[in-house]
Amino acid sequence: MDNFKFHAYTEILFGKGQIQQLPAVLSKYGKNVLLAYGSGSIKKNGIYDSIQSLLSDFNVIDFADIEPNPHLATVERGRDLCLAHNVDVILAVGGGSVIDCSKVVAAATFYDGNAWDLVENSSKITKALPIVTVLTMAGTGSEMNKGAVITNTETQVKRGTGAWTTIPQTSIVDPTYLYTLPAKQTAAGSADIFSHVLESYFKRTPDAYVQDRMAEAILLTVIKYAPIAMVYPEDYSARANLAWASSLALNGILGSGKNGAWSVHPIEHELSAYYDLTHGIGLAILTPPWMRHILNEDTVDKFCEYGVNVWKLPSDMPRFDLANAAIDATETFFESLKIPMTLHEVGIDASKFEVMAKKAVELGGLAYAYVPMNEKDVVEILEACK
Amino acid sequence: MDNFKFHAYTEILFGKGQIQQLPAVLSKYGKNVLLAYGSGSIKKNGIYDSIQSLLSDFNVIDFADIEPNPHLATVERGRDLCLAHNVDVILAVGGGSVIDCSKVVAAATFYDGNAWDLVENSSKITKALPIVTVLTMAGTGSEMNKGAVITNTETQVKRGTGAWTTIPQTSIVDPTYLYTLPAKQTAAGSADIFSHVLESYFKRTPDAYVQDRMAEAILLTVIKYAPIAMVYPEDYSARANLAWASSLALNGILGSGKNGAWSVHPIEHELSAYYDLTHGIGLAILTPPWMRHILNEDTVDKFCEYGVNVWKLPSDMPRFDLANAAIDATETFFESLKIPMTLHEVGIDASKFEVMAKKAVELGGLAYAYVPMNEKDVVEILEACK
Repeated sequence: MDNFKFHAYTEILFGKGQIQQLPAVLSKYGKNVLLAYGSGSIKKNGIYDSIQSLLSDFNVIDFADIEPNPHLATVERGRDLCLAHNVDVILAVGGGSVIDCSKVVAAATFYDGNAWDLVENSSKITKALPIVTVLTMAGTGSEMNKGAVITNTETQVKRGTGAWTTIPQTSIVDPTYLYTLPAKQTAAGSADIFSHVLESYFKRTPDAYVQDRMAEAILLTVIKYAPIAMVYPEDYSARANLAWASSLALNGILGSGKNGAWSVHPIEHELSAYYDLTHGIGLAILTPPWMRHILNEDTVDKFCEYGVNVWKLPSDMPRFDLANAAIDATETFFESLKIPMTLHEVGIDASKFEVMAKKAVELGGLAYAYVPMNEKDVVEILEACK
Repeated sequence: MDNFKFHAYTEILFGKGQIQQLPAVLSKYGKNVLLAYGSGSIKKNGIYDSIQSLLSDFNVIDFADIEPNPHLATVERGRDLCLAHNVDVILAVGGGSVIDCSKVVAAATFYDGNAWDLVENSSKITKALPIVTVLTMAGTGSEMNKGAVITNTETQVKRGTGAWTTIPQTSIVDPTYLYTLPAKQTAAGSADIFSHVLESYFKRTPDAYVQDRMAEAILLTVIKYAPIAMVYPEDYSARANLAWASSLALNGILGSGKNGAWSVHPIEHELSAYYDLTHGIGLAILTPPWMRHILNEDTVDKFCEYGVNVWKLPSDMPRFDLANAAIDATETFFESLKIPMTLHEVGIDASKFEVMAKKAVELGGLAYAYVPMNEKDVVEILEACK
């Protein structure tokens, strides 16, 4: 096991009705609250009104229209609001995009230069406004970690950043808030959880046993509950298990003690930087071809472990048959969530494969992935996704 | 899934050599450090000297001789040291006893009345000195939670307490510090981890699926690595996996979302209150008889789940056969760790069964356990342990 620092200090208030605690939570920080949210679905489902009503004693500044794959320009807009209104705390109501954007806004408020500096170099983040979140989509895990992914639309660069100070102080996770999620978002969020787990599971560290068993626990949870949430969007058990699995998948428990770069996220970030693709959909498309690409004599045993422990395949199958069956099961699972499983279906052609591959290798450090990948590898994976 | 608050905010610095960070960690709080430790094993294995050398710029006040199952009188001694020396931070170097004791010392320093009040009524804990720990034994999980168990030797009452403020701020977990643990302590610590998991696993909440799969992950880790650590005490992988499993078993991940009282710990607390038995040994002795006592038509499916997922028993066995085989496997596992598996072997006779049963039911809330238990139930379980 590699050395690590684990510090997922977010207070999680989980369950139906936890929103009632919001005034007490926010009052620790002050009266000026930046209310960050997305396209307005929280106005349709009533969450916006609940919050406004609960916060009648606060000075609430609206920071609306945060887009999926949030843009640098939106971060700058949020920072300007914080400075203009002397904001004490950011209340991020949404999924990963809203929370990620809020993290960089929180840091940019204390930074004199261009906010993009903080995305390119996370060590420039020294201080951040406190962040409180109300989760409305399960998947990214952003409610319990320091990570934030921002897109610079001028340069078409999508990058991750984050510092220990950008971890949310409190996250309110009410599974009933996920009832109105469209099936496509439920599927994409579930694929995102699945992929976060796989990014940690397929690492070079050989003896992170407890992490790998915990990883399998979360995969089993997604496999059980994502299909239920697709068909019964108001199934509390399904929404609750997916929501908590989402936080646990990326709060450091699975990744701590396992160094090395991620494999699939860096490639997907290029897809959504260039095509504004839903992140989880891109991950689902890329995962089976990536698995097939890296399956070899060195990795086959790990795939067998995955097949037996997660997909309950018989351990006495020939090794490569077992590994391939596990990969096929992964693909079939994503298909069962009605995710389009080719780039063609989501309107992406081969014209930018080379430039995306180059940037994925460069920005994502794919040379340090579980199986190191160069541009040629990434192009081959993208070709297999056509 | 039941509503919950999760807030395991401890910063974990995990791995070989992390002790070097101690001066930076402590300097956040001040110069006056209460160094809490036990019987002196840290003087033999060099940890004490390392710490003294690292803390040459601090004012270190020794708080030695904290006994296993720490006493109220020891808490009072620690509190008096904190007050006399204007202590800024408590550095607890040891296992659960040292850390538990330090938690109540930390709270008692800000409390005007008798320290026992804080044990009897945790809501009286309003403020606590910051606590930093250096772990030297894996098992209790005290390094990452708020719980503390203290014994009042005058009344022979052993009780748990704790508040959000008594969670350690930082815990340094260096698996090489566990190399010198005697085999008996390795076994007892492993049984303690195992029991913590079972206390959460066997709860009435039906749909805490992700928690139960995570619980199994930790059981599998103990089953794999405890026997290795017994035979090869300097196996880094074994010590690292057991240490991290120990923290994860009781930092709230497994128990959050699953309300209800614990079953075995309340009974064991009586054994060690009256006989000063090593906690993990008592848990191992009690667990199989408790399981057999509560196995019935309502619980058999949970035992089958346990048997299939943890002990890899065939799922097509008749249900009660499968459940009993899982219980037998549990017993055999503890035996394989050379744990004496009867009360007779640890010098405990039946003379106090009734009084211990009465107190276990009363103080431990056994009426709210997975299968509710009364005094008669507890006596029957104790009889089966003879």
